[in-house]
Amino acid sequence: MISIDKYREIVEKAILELPKGKRPEGLYSPIDYVLSLGGKRIRPALCLAGTALFNEAAVEQSIPTALGLEIFHNFTLLHDDIMDKSPIRRNHPTVHEKWNDNTAILSGDAMLIQAYQHIAQSPKESLQQVLIIFNQTAIEVCEGQQYDMDFETRTDVTESEYLEMIRLKTGVLIGASLKIGAIIGGATNEEAENIYDFGVKLGICFQLQDDWLDVFGDQKEFGKPIGGDILNNKKTFLLINALNNLEAQEKNELIDWTKRKKFNQNEKIEAVKNLYEKGNASTNTQELMEKYYQKSMESLNKINGNNSIKNELVSFSTVLMRRNR
Amino acid sequence: MISIDKYREIVEKAILELPKGKRPEGLYSPIDYVLSLGGKRIRPALCLAGTALFNEAAVEQSIPTALGLEIFHNFTLLHDDIMDKSPIRRNHPTVHEKWNDNTAILSGDAMLIQAYQHIAQSPKESLQQVLIIFNQTAIEVCEGQQYDMDFETRTDVTESEYLEMIRLKTGVLIGASLKIGAIIGGATNEEAENIYDFGVKLGICFQLQDDWLDVFGDQKEFGKPIGGDILNNKKTFLLINALNNLEAQEKNELIDWTKRKKFNQNEKIEAVKNLYEKGNASTNTQELMEKYYQKSMESLNKINGNNSIKNELVSFSTVLMRRNR
Repeated sequence: MISIDKYREIVEKAILELPKGKRPEGLYSPIDYVLSLGGKRIRPALCLAGTALFNEAAVEQSIPTALGLEIFHNFTLLHDDIMDKSPIRRNHPTVHEKWNDNTAILSGDAMLIQAYQHIAQSPKESLQQVLIIFNQTAIEVCEGQQYDMDFETRTDVTESEYLEMIRLKTGVLIGASLKIGAIIGGATNEEAENIYDFGVKLGICFQLQDDWLDVFGDQKEFGKPIGGDILNNKKTFLLINALNNLEAQEKNELIDWTKRKKFNQNEKIEAVKNLYEKGNASTNTQELMEKYYQKSMESLNKINGNNSIKNELVSFSTVLMRRNR
Repeated sequence: MISIDKYREIVEKAILELPKGKRPEGLYSPIDYVLSLGGKRIRPALCLAGTALFNEAAVEQSIPTALGLEIFHNFTLLHDDIMDKSPIRRNHPTVHEKWNDNTAILSGDAMLIQAYQHIAQSPKESLQQVLIIFNQTAIEVCEGQQYDMDFETRTDVTESEYLEMIRLKTGVLIGASLKIGAIIGGATNEEAENIYDFGVKLGICFQLQDDWLDVFGDQKEFGKPIGGDILNNKKTFLLINALNNLEAQEKNELIDWTKRKKFNQNEKIEAVKNLYEKGNASTNTQELMEKYYQKSMESLNKINGNNSIKNELVSFSTVLMRRNR
């Protein structure tokens, strides 16, 4: 149970109320499909919470903007799935699988424009500021995706490069959702920066957790098969960190696993997992998560907002980061 | 020589001054490449002319917006070229050919966002109105591309469906460029609508001419090989109109040509061209162009703007529609 649920419900209702079945069908039905597949609606909910933190009465005014942020996020998933050739998203076929690449490209483009249509409905007095933040964030998300793709063919990715990549790919949109909401709620620039920092750090923490769970999590809880990143030789923090810390022989073993063309899947997962443990990568990742979590809380604590909303954000972070277990 | 050249020069200079070589290189170098390939810069030049029509002193303020419109147009070409699998654009390899599909998708996304970054710099008092028009137009351009793709597999496309498709794919962005410029220049709503109608109709006229030149033009002047649309069985106004007007036997001959898998290219071009002539499609297309041209001039004449700029727009239309020959 996530404590910002009431905001998620507002968002879900707004999504249900969006006009469906527009024409041309080939353009709009994939969009209806994507938005119907659910998801946690974290970004728009945080946008509304960001507004509530400074002016609960203004939450209503943030709904179109929040919707725009959610549509933008779904646009990025749609296009990333083409680039990554992912067949499944949220337990359903991805758009390029169910339709084709061209449909996924064009419907994605239309979603990005629709995101702006909603964001353009932000209160007039905040519009230019909201747009500047959103534009900057949207470009950074593309930069993050580019770095992620670049890393696939590189063998010398550093930890700080990796952290910068996930900051761009995941952190900044969570931070911007809160910040944009806060601005509509009348936050000062300093408060807006603090709530942004809270979100960015929480986002990085969340992505590190996602890497960790992909290896050490429980399949049922995690919602996708364990070991996917290992099988795909994905440059995660765990892999980069283990390569940095392992002794030469074990390091070579790990590199060898990432290069083998033929292998037994479970054997590879188990072997790499053991090497991650030997290189202390599991502990190091958890310690880094803890560091980012503490930093995010520090940023949140600097804010003089509505205390009950602040508590909701703390409790949301607790649940998101599985600290209630 | 196009008479809105001074506006094109302002745009060209602004494009040259854009920051180049940003990182990650994989994201930004395709954008630098696309924007360096030239093009007529018609849309941004018309945006500046739209402003000048109502307030010459405000042209400077429209430059970022004009730039945004040009970047948007280039984004649509980039993504359309992936969808159409086009290898060449402006005599150079397309981005998906020179790099790959993923690069073309992501760099295109970044260009669309950059377009909004420029448009967000529109004068604050016009921003919300500019955004509403731009968003609506951008979505319509996607709808036009979708209809164009849908038409590929349909055999029952009507003339009015075709005209609606080119209105969306080509007309509305030309209309919106003028209208957005006009709004920044302080045009009334009625004047903004008239300049929009002028642009939309001129755009449709221009696309009809493009269809016509692809069959009946001079290769050297047209800039691309004649008959490309015929070889690709593209549903142009000529094809649809000829199918409507030919007698049964010749109609079947034309359909047969669009279905043949093996043929001599020149033979096909000549045969289809003859059938177009027999079906009066060449004359009918030219008459329709004339009708749209006259309508566009009527809309322009309704406007009480700066007369010398109006004359420039007339003379631009004359050159664009090759009426000075």
